[in-house]
Amino acid sequence: MTTSAHPIEYHSMSRPALDSLEQELATRYSKIGEAHLALDLTRGKPSSEQLNLSDKLDGILNGHYILQDGTDVRNYGGLLGIPEARRLGAAILEIDPEEILVGGNASLTLMHQYLAFMLPVWRQDNSQRIKFICPAPGYDRHFTLCEHFDIEMITVSFDGTDPDMDHIETLVRQDPNIKGIWCVPRYSNPTGYTYSDMAVTRLAKLANIAGSNFRIMWDNAYAVHHLTKTPDKLSNIMVLAHLAGTTDNLVQFASTSKITYAGAGISFLGTSRAMLTAFEKYLAETMIGFDKVNQLRHVLFLKDIEEIDRHMAKHAEILKPKFDLTAEILKKHLGHKGIGEWSLPRGGYFFSFDSIPGLAGEIIALAADVGVRLTPAGATFPYGIDPEDKNIRLAPTYPTLDSLQQALEVFVVCVQLASVRHYLRA
Amino acid sequence: MTTSAHPIEYHSMSRPALDSLEQELATRYSKIGEAHLALDLTRGKPSSEQLNLSDKLDGILNGHYILQDGTDVRNYGGLLGIPEARRLGAAILEIDPEEILVGGNASLTLMHQYLAFMLPVWRQDNSQRIKFICPAPGYDRHFTLCEHFDIEMITVSFDGTDPDMDHIETLVRQDPNIKGIWCVPRYSNPTGYTYSDMAVTRLAKLANIAGSNFRIMWDNAYAVHHLTKTPDKLSNIMVLAHLAGTTDNLVQFASTSKITYAGAGISFLGTSRAMLTAFEKYLAETMIGFDKVNQLRHVLFLKDIEEIDRHMAKHAEILKPKFDLTAEILKKHLGHKGIGEWSLPRGGYFFSFDSIPGLAGEIIALAADVGVRLTPAGATFPYGIDPEDKNIRLAPTYPTLDSLQQALEVFVVCVQLASVRHYLRA
Repeated sequence: MTTSAHPIEYHSMSRPALDSLEQELATRYSKIGEAHLALDLTRGKPSSEQLNLSDKLDGILNGHYILQDGTDVRNYGGLLGIPEARRLGAAILEIDPEEILVGGNASLTLMHQYLAFMLPVWRQDNSQRIKFICPAPGYDRHFTLCEHFDIEMITVSFDGTDPDMDHIETLVRQDPNIKGIWCVPRYSNPTGYTYSDMAVTRLAKLANIAGSNFRIMWDNAYAVHHLTKTPDKLSNIMVLAHLAGTTDNLVQFASTSKITYAGAGISFLGTSRAMLTAFEKYLAETMIGFDKVNQLRHVLFLKDIEEIDRHMAKHAEILKPKFDLTAEILKKHLGHKGIGEWSLPRGGYFFSFDSIPGLAGEIIALAADVGVRLTPAGATFPYGIDPEDKNIRLAPTYPTLDSLQQALEVFVVCVQLASVRHYLRA
Repeated sequence: MTTSAHPIEYHSMSRPALDSLEQELATRYSKIGEAHLALDLTRGKPSSEQLNLSDKLDGILNGHYILQDGTDVRNYGGLLGIPEARRLGAAILEIDPEEILVGGNASLTLMHQYLAFMLPVWRQDNSQRIKFICPAPGYDRHFTLCEHFDIEMITVSFDGTDPDMDHIETLVRQDPNIKGIWCVPRYSNPTGYTYSDMAVTRLAKLANIAGSNFRIMWDNAYAVHHLTKTPDKLSNIMVLAHLAGTTDNLVQFASTSKITYAGAGISFLGTSRAMLTAFEKYLAETMIGFDKVNQLRHVLFLKDIEEIDRHMAKHAEILKPKFDLTAEILKKHLGHKGIGEWSLPRGGYFFSFDSIPGLAGEIIALAADVGVRLTPAGATFPYGIDPEDKNIRLAPTYPTLDSLQQALEVFVVCVQLASVRHYLRA
């Protein structure tokens, strides 16, 4: 049945047909349980095979530590990063090197520091609680940062591949306590969406409605992480911000975490020169500088944007079969049954699956009980609460192809079982 | 005169003798001015020669990325650091590996994060302004962190080589808003003092007077940075804290900044298991993990405490002549004249020079005017204010021996000139 060429939508099935389907699926599910699996689809991490691509970082310095400007990268100093690495970040974010700060091994740390830098400014603006707009499903770590700083999150849904801009403009017009928005504009975590030109244009203008201390947290985590030869096009928001006079309101982030090493890359923050100077001054109170030796390693290894593209093509070679397999299994077992929808990402690290509303938690629990770990229900939403309890993030990058196939074949049984039971309960 | 074998103390010189000395020194000073020097004694940085000692870090991994416990150091995760690096930090701080977190390239960042972690706790304790005791002269970066967090600093002087413990105990008994103290217990920045057993014992018990949320910020920055073959002995404060029941009140810091690379080493935080767990939970809200690849590089390079000691002996070989030269020039030109006192550090990175009270700013200005940069007056005190305007920090590590000699020979002229003018004004 579930592999039939002409699947029937569950909602139109008769009760006896649903009963028999439930029995069949329950039998398969309990067989799976006997296999004592231990599989994991939660980890948005590169595989070892991908990490191997960057092992030339070791030994690449070869006695070369002094930069053109005379800086010894091994010593203290240089909070903005080495010029060569600033140029690399500028190429990735498509802005000017003078607008770039190069950080340590995590852009998340830069986001944390930037929020800490802005908080006193926001608090001066008003005595009420600071709020952020969070398009969701989104990246759980953004939401954790908001909770950490006691920033209230307002969930906004997507309208096609864009955050709902009408809703967002209305919100910031009504509420001056809204001080920012999180965006993952390209191959968004977890949906894989890339924002349209129109959405980027409206976002670039948003501060003109929201006020001068409003910030767009533009986390371009997957800027160069394409899976196809025809990458999604993303408008250059810095250019649009220049036109709108809002460059101070824009702060961009990127990193090499999924270019070289997930735990030992370098990160970038990009904003207007004026804001960069203010941010540097703030940082100088708390630290001396980031690891410039690792910055130089990355410069020598990644060289320029052309080399980065060549390097990312090698990642895509490893990742594409995993994404294709995921798309194939989902389509084969869940397609045209009216029991779920999912994205077909053209880059990034995730699939985003929407079950029938109300079933995400049940599906995840079913999978867990037979040894397949899925990202917890709600994890992709502010406060861990998916209002429709339907979104499940699937991370296909880390497992081997075999493990991935095994895990997904369990997943699709769990989705079907939860769905048929849903209609039997109805 | 100034090079006489039997110098006369300035304060006992006659006015004509002072006049003639002033003229001689002024002439020498203006000759120095004609040389258009550009020398710098401000930088507490290792020299390139020292940095070269660790260049084997590059290429040391040699394809080895998987730890005994299966961790791939290139990937995400592991906030406490790799077990091998925790053992290394434990050896440096002489505590248990389970009490260690391994950080990124700066212990200052760990101090910043630890203060941010404690602030809400301290604020719950009382509504008044939080205060810290700052033995001074001390490390300016500690004071900057306090200013950053709006922590009021109470300057406490030294009593011999120890912070004035009587004063400190009285202060914490009187004022419950005092929540911490900064300590650089070995080869203290800038005095070179190492705390006595008695002082360490009293510090270990301090929280029993000051309260459960009091913290000793034990910055053991120069834990293994000896310049002699008979290192200063420092009591193990963690052992004493166990006896006093105050291990939660103690947090220790160290780094390899002045062991391997100043800008690209690894750092350590040590505290009780209970506090480490709480701190890890706090950090997990803001970050994923520190650079484990660099941690592994350091483990492979530094190996164990014996190898660290051998490595530090090579540093000492480079540093000892610079410290000896400094001591020699100071003694030769300023000894027995009643115009200054200075430490003879047996480790660490600095000389601390005390002029006649009221002259530090003048001496530093005189030196600056002839091209010798000295650390700004007051920099070693909270709020940049040296109440006696007498302390000057000299950093002999970074310049070559020749530059160091040149700079110091200017410095001693400036000290003498300011001092003779002081007595002429009197």
